[in-house]
Amino acid sequence: MNAAATGDTAHAMPDDARFGLRRHVTLAGPLRLDGGMLLSPVEIAYETYGTLDPDGSNAVLICHALTGDHYVASEHPVTGKPGWWTRLIGPGLPVDPARHFVICANVLGSCMGSSGPASENPATGQPWGMAFPVITIRDMVRAQAMLLDHLGVARLRAVIGGSMGGMQALSWASTFPDRVAAAVVIASTARHSAQNIAFHEVGRQAIMADPNWRGGAYYGDGAPPTAGLAVARMAAHITYLSEAGLTEKFGRRLQHSPERPNGAKSFGFDADFQVESYLRHQGISFVDRFDANSYLYITRALDYFDLAEEHGGLLANAFRHTTARFAVISFDTDWLYPTSDSRAIVHALNAAGARASFVELSSPFGHDAFLLDAPEMNRVIDGFLRAGER
Amino acid sequence: MNAAATGDTAHAMPDDARFGLRRHVTLAGPLRLDGGMLLSPVEIAYETYGTLDPDGSNAVLICHALTGDHYVASEHPVTGKPGWWTRLIGPGLPVDPARHFVICANVLGSCMGSSGPASENPATGQPWGMAFPVITIRDMVRAQAMLLDHLGVARLRAVIGGSMGGMQALSWASTFPDRVAAAVVIASTARHSAQNIAFHEVGRQAIMADPNWRGGAYYGDGAPPTAGLAVARMAAHITYLSEAGLTEKFGRRLQHSPERPNGAKSFGFDADFQVESYLRHQGISFVDRFDANSYLYITRALDYFDLAEEHGGLLANAFRHTTARFAVISFDTDWLYPTSDSRAIVHALNAAGARASFVELSSPFGHDAFLLDAPEMNRVIDGFLRAGER
Repeated sequence: MNAAATGDTAHAMPDDARFGLRRHVTLAGPLRLDGGMLLSPVEIAYETYGTLDPDGSNAVLICHALTGDHYVASEHPVTGKPGWWTRLIGPGLPVDPARHFVICANVLGSCMGSSGPASENPATGQPWGMAFPVITIRDMVRAQAMLLDHLGVARLRAVIGGSMGGMQALSWASTFPDRVAAAVVIASTARHSAQNIAFHEVGRQAIMADPNWRGGAYYGDGAPPTAGLAVARMAAHITYLSEAGLTEKFGRRLQHSPERPNGAKSFGFDADFQVESYLRHQGISFVDRFDANSYLYITRALDYFDLAEEHGGLLANAFRHTTARFAVISFDTDWLYPTSDSRAIVHALNAAGARASFVELSSPFGHDAFLLDAPEMNRVIDGFLRAGER
Repeated sequence: MNAAATGDTAHAMPDDARFGLRRHVTLAGPLRLDGGMLLSPVEIAYETYGTLDPDGSNAVLICHALTGDHYVASEHPVTGKPGWWTRLIGPGLPVDPARHFVICANVLGSCMGSSGPASENPATGQPWGMAFPVITIRDMVRAQAMLLDHLGVARLRAVIGGSMGGMQALSWASTFPDRVAAAVVIASTARHSAQNIAFHEVGRQAIMADPNWRGGAYYGDGAPPTAGLAVARMAAHITYLSEAGLTEKFGRRLQHSPERPNGAKSFGFDADFQVESYLRHQGISFVDRFDANSYLYITRALDYFDLAEEHGGLLANAFRHTTARFAVISFDTDWLYPTSDSRAIVHALNAAGARASFVELSSPFGHDAFLLDAPEMNRVIDGFLRAGER
């Protein structure tokens, strides 16, 4: 345990949370951020599963995506849904609390208990709002490293993440080359493209155009910019699915309603098409569990992400000092972070002399495939982790 | 001239409008719409270039896209920009007023002079707003047919359009098989996909979430829902460009500003990246020239478009009675209406025994390629039109 910790609370868990251990720690810091600011204190909400081996060698860090959280294998306290990666993590699964000490922390800038725009600014006693410093993927990783110090984990057997989680895995191997034995990078990229940035900018403008946003100072009166955040979510959600997947799932099928039991066009602006109804639902349900300012900050961190730029413009330089093994996995219908992005990572790993394996998996589900039933992905990860444990 | 015309005004044109003849006609109608309503009167703003041959055989109808207008080869009165298709239409170009009588009409539902939500509802003397009937692509085409009646054009030598213009060209050949000798369908589709609908739904929700929208009744006080409309435009604009084109044009290049003359991240929420600045500009400049309600109506017409559905579910049936020749053109980087959509049109034309030629052109510019410098497209159209004139 690290002396910098100023508080750590383990809450009793309800039975249905299975094997999760809900925790929150306030670390004194300060954490020096890429933007130059010192953040103190650093609050981190996290979950752990399993037990750390006496030699501290079995820790596996799971990194979550943009709108994810640390409830990776525990019931979400707001939605009541099971953990978001229970297909990968659990008894008998590739990441197994019976043999791994699994850690998942809410990223810096998020809104599920870690420091972010909705958390308290110690200088004012009020929520940070837009006074919260702009953070980077590397800042998120540095905060996780502070948490590992606190937990007594010197080195990770593996760091695993999809999408933004994969960026964190890459950043981990690059920023802390001695602390990572293996990295699994799924449906991810080493840099955000112009199109990636463009979609995020649409979302940010949607939030900021909502009069309820009020420069981010909306926490006091229960009127957050939900309309803008819902539009942002809808736009982003399209990028998580494939065109073919949308066609298969919805096509041009019409909604059935009491007025139109057989499904017919309304010649109005109701959600005639099932895909419209689905998207509206995605937008509306998202605002119940996510903070609009956090959405601004995390999309900004994603857009700033360019691992090569942090290393003189050459991606291979990011991996010069790593001793980690890498498994890079892409999905053929992912157009948010397409296979070519994963290939660029693998080329750089090869150029740096790192041990890298790469597989492109087939799935109709686009970017979201890594969160869905993906037996091949599980087999790849299982084999990759066991190879390191032999 | 048709007796139903209640007014036709030819305005004197400034010299810089070149050879355009700005016109507006109010036709008594009524026009029976696909939604069941009767629209009367039907106002149509249009331009013509060149002279109709005595035998009426040289008319070419140009159909515009979602946010286009009839200023196809004339200066736009609001933006002052040259006509949107002066690369295709003009002296010595494939469509040449020296040998063609060129017609381009603002579509029904739009906001540049034709009947739409911003025009006057005769029942109230006020703008229609959301009381304007929901219209379809076929309704747009029927209104154009009324205009051709008024102009004394029985049969079109060609109907030409890109994107939504291509849908109108298809609908023309299907709805008025005896009035179309040739159709050029560029970067288009015979049906809107689930992903197409999804993107439009994001735009509509952005507009409707803007408190200034007020159920569409915003015309009185000079406070239209510009913020929502700008977000809608930004989201749509991404779909008009290719990922590779965005990367080539902007990549991750940063904006230069007085505070950051060498281009550096602001660690704030300014438009750091050039692509952000570009998108914001696209949104802001759009709201000066377009009506938010028109955007709702025309996107709805696009989403409703499914030519096969209008013909018992079999696209070939749409072309059973046509005698037209078809040229179908797609662009390899167009992901809004990809080449596979054009291929489906050509398959149906072949199945119906229609004369169809098909070409996929290479361009880095995505869907917007048809509006940009495309010498190969011009050669294809020129050859296609001349073949029909021999």
